Amino acid sequence: MSDTNDFSADRRQFVRMAGIGAVAGAGILASAKASTAHGKEKHGAVPTPAAADGSFVGGTVKEGLVVADPTKLPAPITYKTPRSHDVELVVKRVKSEILPGVTHTFMTFNGQIPGPMIRARQGDTLRITVTNPAENVESHSIDLHAVYGTGGGGEFTEVAAGESKTFTFKALYAGAFIYHCGVANMDEHISRGMFGMIVIEPEEGLPKVDREIYLGQHELYTKEGFGQKGEANFSGRNMVKEDPTYVMFNGAVAPFVNGRFGTIKANVGETVRVFLVTGGPNKTSSFHPVGNVWSKAWPQGGLANPPLNFIQTWPSSPGSAFVGDMHLPVPQLVTLVDHSLSRVTSKGNAAQIEVIGDPQPDILKTEG
Amino acid sequence: MSDTNDFSADRRQFVRMAGIGAVAGAGILASAKASTAHGKEKHGAVPTPAAADGSFVGGTVKEGLVVADPTKLPAPITYKTPRSHDVELVVKRVKSEILPGVTHTFMTFNGQIPGPMIRARQGDTLRITVTNPAENVESHSIDLHAVYGTGGGGEFTEVAAGESKTFTFKALYAGAFIYHCGVANMDEHISRGMFGMIVIEPEEGLPKVDREIYLGQHELYTKEGFGQKGEANFSGRNMVKEDPTYVMFNGAVAPFVNGRFGTIKANVGETVRVFLVTGGPNKTSSFHPVGNVWSKAWPQGGLANPPLNFIQTWPSSPGSAFVGDMHLPVPQLVTLVDHSLSRVTSKGNAAQIEVIGDPQPDILKTEG
Amino acid sequence: MSDTNDFSADRRQFVRMAGIGAVAGAGILASAKASTAHGKEKHGAVPTPAAADGSFVGGTVKEGLVVADPTKLPAPITYKTPRSHDVELVVKRVKSEILPGVTHTFMTFNGQIPGPMIRARQGDTLRITVTNPAENVESHSIDLHAVYGTGGGGEFTEVAAGESKTFTFKALYAGAFIYHCGVANMDEHISRGMFGMIVIEPEEGLPKVDREIYLGQHELYTKEGFGQKGEANFSGRNMVKEDPTYVMFNGAVAPFVNGRFGTIKANVGETVRVFLVTGGPNKTSSFHPVGNVWSKAWPQGGLANPPLNFIQTWPSSPGSAFVGDMHLPVPQLVTLVDHSLSRVTSKGNAAQIEVIGDPQPDILKTEG
Repeated sequence: MSDTNDFSADRRQFVRMAGIGAVAGAGILASAKASTAHGKEKHGAVPTPAAADGSFVGGTVKEGLVVADPTKLPAPITYKTPRSHDVELVVKRVKSEILPGVTHTFMTFNGQIPGPMIRARQGDTLRITVTNPAENVESHSIDLHAVYGTGGGGEFTEVAAGESKTFTFKALYAGAFIYHCGVANMDEHISRGMFGMIVIEPEEGLPKVDREIYLGQHELYTKEGFGQKGEANFSGRNMVKEDPTYVMFNGAVAPFVNGRFGTIKANVGETVRVFLVTGGPNKTSSFHPVGNVWSKAWPQGGLANPPLNFIQTWPSSPGSAFVGDMHLPVPQLVTLVDHSLSRVTSKGNAAQIEVIGDPQPDILKTEG
Repeated sequence: MSDTNDFSADRRQFVRMAGIGAVAGAGILASAKASTAHGKEKHGAVPTPAAADGSFVGGTVKEGLVVADPTKLPAPITYKTPRSHDVELVVKRVKSEILPGVTHTFMTFNGQIPGPMIRARQGDTLRITVTNPAENVESHSIDLHAVYGTGGGGEFTEVAAGESKTFTFKALYAGAFIYHCGVANMDEHISRGMFGMIVIEPEEGLPKVDREIYLGQHELYTKEGFGQKGEANFSGRNMVKEDPTYVMFNGAVAPFVNGRFGTIKANVGETVRVFLVTGGPNKTSSFHPVGNVWSKAWPQGGLANPPLNFIQTWPSSPGSAFVGDMHLPVPQLVTLVDHSLSRVTSKGNAAQIEVIGDPQPDILKTEG
Repeated sequence: MSDTNDFSADRRQFVRMAGIGAVAGAGILASAKASTAHGKEKHGAVPTPAAADGSFVGGTVKEGLVVADPTKLPAPITYKTPRSHDVELVVKRVKSEILPGVTHTFMTFNGQIPGPMIRARQGDTLRITVTNPAENVESHSIDLHAVYGTGGGGEFTEVAAGESKTFTFKALYAGAFIYHCGVANMDEHISRGMFGMIVIEPEEGLPKVDREIYLGQHELYTKEGFGQKGEANFSGRNMVKEDPTYVMFNGAVAPFVNGRFGTIKANVGETVRVFLVTGGPNKTSSFHPVGNVWSKAWPQGGLANPPLNFIQTWPSSPGSAFVGDMHLPVPQLVTLVDHSLSRVTSKGNAAQIEVIGDPQPDILKTEG
């Protein structure tokens, strides 16, 4: 294979492409510089999310896109006795922009990536219904890592197009777990968007924080190269080689940055919790907050354990999760990344939290 | 490289091939559905394994195959004062079926993959002999991660064909460790089967469980594609690219499923412990029990530490191990996998535990 | 792609090449055998490093090479009240031998890989200056994972050739952190050497050890194959595929072995601490000491947590670190490796500690 068209050329082409969005790929961290976020301008404080006790919350950033709004998730559990919940998930195919001019026909739970967060308390009973509308073609199902049962529920929920199936389980153990499609082609279906998180809070609840964020990492394998205009068609060959074209949060290249769908907002002095679900299907995310640190970290989403303190980067396995808290002592941009950095510079992996407030020169001071 | 013969075609061919065994690859998790295991039929209880105090136990599922019987392992340690053990390992080349019609000439310790589990107590003394019969060609050795000494013993045991060497070490620290061939081509020799586990129990022993299972994950690099009939010849080129053809437990595609060598059996209400040795030579196993959870987990086989609780998936490094306990509250199939799922759907990674007993509708209830 | 020139041929060529150094690649662990280190000859004891309270220490093994001397690092912190430090880092391009006859033009902090260790105490204030001399071409910056602030400082330190920038931060949390170049091409710059470690000790300090060692793992992506003579030119294409040519410690193939730059020395009975910074930019290091064990292990460099005990191999993420202690009860060679073993046999990953002293037959005894 000739190497004459190596990286420099690729990168030039990539940066040119990325330039359209002025935010994507190689330019993203650099673009942070152009932001107005980090204390140089004054902003109004970001409002605290309204309490919403255990309700089923979801939604995307824009009609017609799969990109889940990272601030739309159920509120922390406050009730103290077991409850029952009804969860309905509908499989939707959605043609959605990965970046401007590039689309993929994703498979989703309820039209969003990641699927809506399901949140309950240890000891609760959940009734799960999966519906596969008649306009679909392939079969789907749900495997929840919170379930004791064959296929994590996958056996009881496999639905052909036009079918709907239901099962009920008791959540016996706490943790932040992935759920995902569990049919024979599950790796393809996850790559194309069929995964989300189910949080089973411990009976005593989680440590309080000011703000919560919910993201899903997945890699998409396509026949077309990164950024090639038009529809990006799924490539099973590249998937089997574990050679992804895109490594994204929420089904789009660098979705939460200024100039794209906007940063996620928070205030100086707050503590923010990030729930990451790593769909994969194949890649570990070396999950790191650029410019910050996980002051508390629950590896693999293991909420039944005491958290680790001050962890920079954690290997979050495919088919797993990560929960991490951050203090926000200074105004800044925090860029969430998989620290396998070529996935950031060249495959679209990045999401930014914009922390608004007054400069704190005792902690951080620039010169010149 | 043309992409016309992409995944769909590959997969069709794969599924066709897999259809022969009706259990392999893409079909495996789906095939769980066809099983009679999960409480729909009544089975007699699976007998508890007989106690066998510290003896050296091994064996394969079938004469002529390398596939180690996952239930043949030494019993937990019950003695309370230091002992000495003699361990003899013989290098055997075995041509064994990976899946029906596909063979590989494996290299093994004692004819099985993984090699027999060595089990002792912290403070014991072990005398290790490695014999390389004259009919072999290459040199071999053993590197045990339980040893303080150059090459983990590799230096003292390198044996040309026709040689035998012995050394003795004191097991000073507890843990579940890999042992593997340690010659210059060690990556090839591990890929082809030369690895196993040595468990050094802490002085106080391990928490009691009802049943123990022993598995070894390794990836095999071949010149021929997945499932191509005939002998699959080793490919060093693919190994250096870390692009495996097969990712297997115990030297065969999906060995422990109905229709192949049979599921591993257990009873509802039991706790089962899984000892996984990750030979690699290159890949991390994101080890997960589909439909269950690691109620106790000892990352990297670190038995000298308190276990983590309720971990869904753990990154078990190559050259390492994992020990995990599962509660079995419901009748079900538990499918052990590396949650890099393309290795399950397309490279043969899966092993099933069939949990037998009465349905528990308070925990799991299906409809329709 | 033809497979006729597969591994055996590659390996023969490799071993032939490696033979020049008699220590590199496939031959390295075997070469341990030829060493005089492991108790067969008597050596004088290795002197304890002199105390050097918090000073800024660095240096390479040889003028003109990037290979950092693994024993040149600042001493443990002994002071008990907050201090201020001035740290100056200068970006230097250095053409350095990867192995005899093969060069790469590396990018470095202060001419060494990894960059000099910065060591301070939780609560200290650090003033960081990055200078990019006029003879360079590209822009550079520094992102330190110990910093609260946009880009970990990357935003405030991006310097074009001929520029110098300074910022000041307060180290609010303890840990062993990576620092690295943070410009848009950061993955390339890290691959080519721009990373190092900043250790922020907890207020109470770290457990005492006899000796400390400092290493950096990174993978280099080149257009030319492993060992090809002449300049090895950077390949962005291979980087995006995460398919490295070399996986090295400190910018050279197997640098710290006899016959190359010499082993790292220690005495029987000592405890040695290894600080590993995993630059990546993409690969996790399954970090293992061959012939030993991490008696204490701080995953991901998380010094704010109690260490794990007796861990054989740990997944150290790219963009992260690892701190591990080893007891040295016997004379031996300890070979530090990424246990993704094809990186050892075929990509140059290895560094050896030579432990000098009297044989301990109660712990290890060879026969014949």
